Amino acid sequence: MAQRIVLLTEGHTSIYYAKTAYSVLRYRAEEVVALLDTQEVGKTAGGLLGVGGDVPVVGDLGDVPDADTLIIGIGVHGGKLPEVMRGHLLKAVERGMTVISGLHEFLSDDADLAAAAEHSGAHLWDVRKNHEHEVAEGRGFEDGCYRLHTVGQDCSVGKMIVSVEVSRALAGRGLSSKFVATGQTGIMVEGDGTPIDTVVADFINGAAEKLVLRNQHHDVMCIEGQGSILHPSYSSVTLGLLHGCRPDGLILCYEAGRTHVKGLDHIALKSLETYRALYESLASEMHPCRVVGVGMNSRRLDDAAFEAEKRRVGEALGLPVADVVREGAGVLADAVERAIRDRQPR
Amino acid sequence: MAQRIVLLTEGHTSIYYAKTAYSVLRYRAEEVVALLDTQEVGKTAGGLLGVGGDVPVVGDLGDVPDADTLIIGIGVHGGKLPEVMRGHLLKAVERGMTVISGLHEFLSDDADLAAAAEHSGAHLWDVRKNHEHEVAEGRGFEDGCYRLHTVGQDCSVGKMIVSVEVSRALAGRGLSSKFVATGQTGIMVEGDGTPIDTVVADFINGAAEKLVLRNQHHDVMCIEGQGSILHPSYSSVTLGLLHGCRPDGLILCYEAGRTHVKGLDHIALKSLETYRALYESLASEMHPCRVVGVGMNSRRLDDAAFEAEKRRVGEALGLPVADVVREGAGVLADAVERAIRDRQPR
Repeated sequence: MAQRIVLLTEGHTSIYYAKTAYSVLRYRAEEVVALLDTQEVGKTAGGLLGVGGDVPVVGDLGDVPDADTLIIGIGVHGGKLPEVMRGHLLKAVERGMTVISGLHEFLSDDADLAAAAEHSGAHLWDVRKNHEHEVAEGRGFEDGCYRLHTVGQDCSVGKMIVSVEVSRALAGRGLSSKFVATGQTGIMVEGDGTPIDTVVADFINGAAEKLVLRNQHHDVMCIEGQGSILHPSYSSVTLGLLHGCRPDGLILCYEAGRTHVKGLDHIALKSLETYRALYESLASEMHPCRVVGVGMNSRRLDDAAFEAEKRRVGEALGLPVADVVREGAGVLADAVERAIRDRQPR
Repeated sequence: MAQRIVLLTEGHTSIYYAKTAYSVLRYRAEEVVALLDTQEVGKTAGGLLGVGGDVPVVGDLGDVPDADTLIIGIGVHGGKLPEVMRGHLLKAVERGMTVISGLHEFLSDDADLAAAAEHSGAHLWDVRKNHEHEVAEGRGFEDGCYRLHTVGQDCSVGKMIVSVEVSRALAGRGLSSKFVATGQTGIMVEGDGTPIDTVVADFINGAAEKLVLRNQHHDVMCIEGQGSILHPSYSSVTLGLLHGCRPDGLILCYEAGRTHVKGLDHIALKSLETYRALYESLASEMHPCRVVGVGMNSRRLDDAAFEAEKRRVGEALGLPVADVVREGAGVLADAVERAIRDRQPR
């Protein structure tokens, strides 16, 4: 059922922080009635984030009396709730709205919010809350389903968007294709998935394996990646997912022009070749796997720079390169279709 | 303060399952009064596990009226409580004993046990329970402390024991050396540490980093490793620890004669060279690091086979090899001392 969604981005309405708001606007635009940020009242989603067109920014929930759902629209390093958001949240709960959060700090663990929800009947959905507790066993994978996995040079380079767009492009060609969400935003977009970065350590690989095993009836899975294999904070999540989901093919995602780890400016990123080699070798020790294409996030580049970067990276890696936001997912979907055709019978 | 410990190993008193009992017997033998297993009554710890000498196996807690502490002495894949242990546990709690568990299933979450403990005043210590929630930031490491980390080809190959023994050997040579425990058994032996495999995914690297940063006043840290970088179930834990603790040197641990992943007989182990290359490359992308020695677990080998294996592996890898249980930690401590001397000033 369609919802009437307010995206809470108080003090954080920029593409750097408002990753969740951006994706909900991109994939569920018709359900979004407003952004909520007292700092940007009167502006539009399109103007601030480049998606969502005329969706307005309001400064108070009272301005959108028919909204029934509030989604916390940001992702922050460490997943804590910014204090500036508390007042809005409490109002939404008191109004009996459904409140959806992808933060590590669970709304349902907050005494004030939980008490208010109890009183108003508001539903608090902590997307990251999970009870995964199965270890991976490395069996049960079927050959009929091609497992594509997006991996990256860093966080927030577009792995989720590439996964969604390639999955939709393949579906448009008549394949049964499933976007398999592994993060809070992907789950909000798709309606199901597993918040892999919030699973207890021993069960990360197992949670990924279970997620894949229950989607094997499709022709293709496009499994959202997380973090990076050399991310100082999150590499464990990345490897658990890579090993747990046993991919056949990878799309390597990066943001052109980014030189350092997002949020950790003292740590330089390595070359794309380094990441490609690590991902392919670590994955292939479990199951034959290769990178089939590169997903570029070119938001910082003008057209000329974009074309030059695409040529440079394509030649260096010998792989098709595309920015799915700028030019659609056709080139990468072609690469996946070729990989499916070329796959050796096992 | 010394305790009077009963090790609960009901139905699992073998070296395969009773890893925790083995290590407590090895390092806190003087505090252990009995093993508890109705299947093995009248035998001794030494006879069944090869450590603990004459410590007897009893079939009922009533046989050891002066015991004040019960430790669940096993580690099982997935960390669930075997049903056969429940009756003993409840009796221990009703008697007001301190009950220590390293399982994933927390005793304090079990309604019956929690109620009994409330009534008797028994202390339930779930060693794996933690509230780690800091992300790694990759800074604050000091050059004055050499960070040694044990890594392995599989689970249960001896990483904890190598860490303890090398640390003790270095301490015996006048260095300030700290065994840094990262698993439930290590924590029971050392009295502090972080149960890294039970941390929420996003905070694994951060928990490892924090653990290291607070021990830097020592000359050397011997940081216990977990799992293996190619373990189908636990590789995420391994990488988070490797990246979070920024080792200078590694000791590669394995069990001679083991061919398949413990508990997953359909998955073959790779060559030691494969693991060495992966560990060195993944660690060195964060901080210069190399393997300085090999810790062999040779429990399946007779003396001749042991010597042959040691020669073979030593020549293949060009590294010192030793079984610390069989021959002491001198050879590996020598290797660490050389590595400390050879370290380039940074």
